[in-house]
Amino acid sequence: MTRRGETALRFSATGQLALREEPVITRLMTAVLERPELLSLAAGFTDNSQLPADSVDRAAAALRAKDPGKTYLQYGRNAGDPALRGALAAHLRTFPGETLPDIGADDFLVTNGSQQLLYMTVQLFCDPGDTVWVEAPSYFVFLELLRGLGVRPVSMPVTPDGVIDAVGCCRQLRAWRAKGVAGRPRLAYLMGAFANPSSRSLAADEKTALAEALRAEAPDLPVVEDMAYRELYFGEPPGVPSMLSMEVWRGHPVLYAGTLTKPFATGLKTGYGVTRSKTWREGLERIKGHQDFGSSQYAQALLREVMQSGDYARHLRGVRPFYAEKAALLERVLEEAGLRTCGWDWESPAGGLLLWLRAPDGLDTSFDGRLWSAAMEESVLYVPGDLCFAEGVPRNFVRLSFGALAADRIGEAAQRFARAAARAAARAAD
Amino acid sequence: MTRRGETALRFSATGQLALREEPVITRLMTAVLERPELLSLAAGFTDNSQLPADSVDRAAAALRAKDPGKTYLQYGRNAGDPALRGALAAHLRTFPGETLPDIGADDFLVTNGSQQLLYMTVQLFCDPGDTVWVEAPSYFVFLELLRGLGVRPVSMPVTPDGVIDAVGCCRQLRAWRAKGVAGRPRLAYLMGAFANPSSRSLAADEKTALAEALRAEAPDLPVVEDMAYRELYFGEPPGVPSMLSMEVWRGHPVLYAGTLTKPFATGLKTGYGVTRSKTWREGLERIKGHQDFGSSQYAQALLREVMQSGDYARHLRGVRPFYAEKAALLERVLEEAGLRTCGWDWESPAGGLLLWLRAPDGLDTSFDGRLWSAAMEESVLYVPGDLCFAEGVPRNFVRLSFGALAADRIGEAAQRFARAAARAAARAAD
Repeated sequence: MTRRGETALRFSATGQLALREEPVITRLMTAVLERPELLSLAAGFTDNSQLPADSVDRAAAALRAKDPGKTYLQYGRNAGDPALRGALAAHLRTFPGETLPDIGADDFLVTNGSQQLLYMTVQLFCDPGDTVWVEAPSYFVFLELLRGLGVRPVSMPVTPDGVIDAVGCCRQLRAWRAKGVAGRPRLAYLMGAFANPSSRSLAADEKTALAEALRAEAPDLPVVEDMAYRELYFGEPPGVPSMLSMEVWRGHPVLYAGTLTKPFATGLKTGYGVTRSKTWREGLERIKGHQDFGSSQYAQALLREVMQSGDYARHLRGVRPFYAEKAALLERVLEEAGLRTCGWDWESPAGGLLLWLRAPDGLDTSFDGRLWSAAMEESVLYVPGDLCFAEGVPRNFVRLSFGALAADRIGEAAQRFARAAARAAARAAD
Repeated sequence: MTRRGETALRFSATGQLALREEPVITRLMTAVLERPELLSLAAGFTDNSQLPADSVDRAAAALRAKDPGKTYLQYGRNAGDPALRGALAAHLRTFPGETLPDIGADDFLVTNGSQQLLYMTVQLFCDPGDTVWVEAPSYFVFLELLRGLGVRPVSMPVTPDGVIDAVGCCRQLRAWRAKGVAGRPRLAYLMGAFANPSSRSLAADEKTALAEALRAEAPDLPVVEDMAYRELYFGEPPGVPSMLSMEVWRGHPVLYAGTLTKPFATGLKTGYGVTRSKTWREGLERIKGHQDFGSSQYAQALLREVMQSGDYARHLRGVRPFYAEKAALLERVLEEAGLRTCGWDWESPAGGLLLWLRAPDGLDTSFDGRLWSAAMEESVLYVPGDLCFAEGVPRNFVRLSFGALAADRIGEAAQRFARAAARAAARAAD
């Protein structure tokens, strides 16, 4: 674990886990850096052309004008800027079905992107060796986070079309209960809207059935509903409220994970969590106190200003049709290149930044498979779908992102991907 | 551990530790919030009047002009902005005695303040139950961080005047070695310049003696040299180079912990670490990949611009005499109020933001003692010195900060403190 010529260091269990496996993101980034001609449909970045430089400048000017004491450049509170948290509480109530009369600034915690919130939540509930219940597929960066803390992700049962199988969940929970509480996952992690990678949103009855299963079999199992992509809808806002507003979830420990990073500016790196569980929130706040005792106050002050001025909402009205068009473009080129007729399949996303493709049966899309080597030859990058499953199977899915790549390169990238798919299929036939 | 009316949650070992004790900072902040008339000589904030709003605006304008692609508002790299890391490498070489020809951008990791760097370093090397070697006194937030991860701080031997006792260190290391490697601390943590709380700087021969002790007894014990206050010198820059540049430390695993937060703008929350150990740096980078996959790119881009334009150096030329005057004012008022004649003693700081006072023997300065209750009656806040010792003793020290409180309030605060000291002494005589 130590480089040649270095003093051998003795690492903790966490340190050894961290050093054991190269993260996927490193592998993908190295590919990009080594081959500048490569077009990436893998990166989870947003589109630089949409980054709100004017809004940020206006917010900075407003801060100067309003606050001669310059508190926006000083340390803030560990839990986050109270005015930003208040703005977030008000903002949450603007979504369809989201009532939350009892939720206020004090129920929020601001973090370095929602990633830190997820990391701290896992620290709070999970010891090494524990398990976390995740969707199939789930967010691969979260799966890596779990493994980095020595925690094992376990897939929830889903129906063939990807819907959470509440009956199967009940059965699994009951089996765990029979083995005693130790064998059960310590946490469940779901993405409520335009999930990464599937772009699916949880339906109301799906959430209701899960709540009922949990009430019967595991009323104390903490649940995270990650809403990172919620605001990036293409047409109408999602009609299903978060678990926080659903009567059937009342009394169940739930954390809503949100972010201002993806919908506004990734460079401001500001996420947030909100929960009715005072102990959960306080535990996170304590861990944050040790980890960094508060996120950048300047980023928070800019975002508070942007939300209060209406620039945040205006920005989103602009980016929604923009990403809708990029999604449509990516789909159209893939269709025209004949991908569907070769046995590929996908659902059109209604929001988010991702397209989730099912490859023909038998085509291995993983780093070890034919599609990956063909894609390298065609100079196009994707995320192998197996990375998004807790158990690493199935191996015939692909995640494509239409977020980062400029609109005028998406067509070319999609054509390269289609050629790679054809090439991989031809080799299979050999 | 769960509030009334809440579902009982089952927390991890880390979660239980986090929830067990209220952090000191919470106790101090609650006091301030409940009693607005209170003047705080406790807070580690910098002075709002010195926050560089103009420099930040200039940097923002420069970023817009130079980078129409707006990458400064996009996600950055997990390890930090390469240009900022390059600027930091160049900056480090400007200190007296700091050569570092072999250190470049790739040896740096940018973090959410240096606190995150310290947290991740402890995660990398320490399992719960392990120990970390610290100075006596040491930075109380670091001591809390350790306890939050289930790690126990242990004091290094020091001479009566606070100098590290290299002979004692040798003896302690040898005793640990006799017990086998398991009993030895996993990490040593020192503050090289204007330490929090003592404002002491490590002398060259002190660092040399420690290096020799470690070479003999523990050549693989990782050492952190925290230089958070290094740039806040009052007169000349400290003449002793960091361990990274000292020949005697060559080959020993050392991490330099720095920050742009304290010297420039606390609201930008940007720290950094630099080490020659590729494995150490890589381990930190991996953990950061799980924890937040990169700090705010906007804060980093602003700081890169500020360093490259010369505004950073200009800012420091202004704040140094400013804090020197505040330190002198605080000392003068305490002297004039007769504190020294009542048996109090302290060294004049040559930099930093803190004054470290030794109370007369027998005067308990802790939360449970007479001075604290007298200070509450006089409406002045300080940090009890016992919090800064791994073992919680001695109990006759006080940390006062001249950083945050406006210059025109420092005199009043110092008078209140002196009255509290007199009142506590009078009660002792009763």
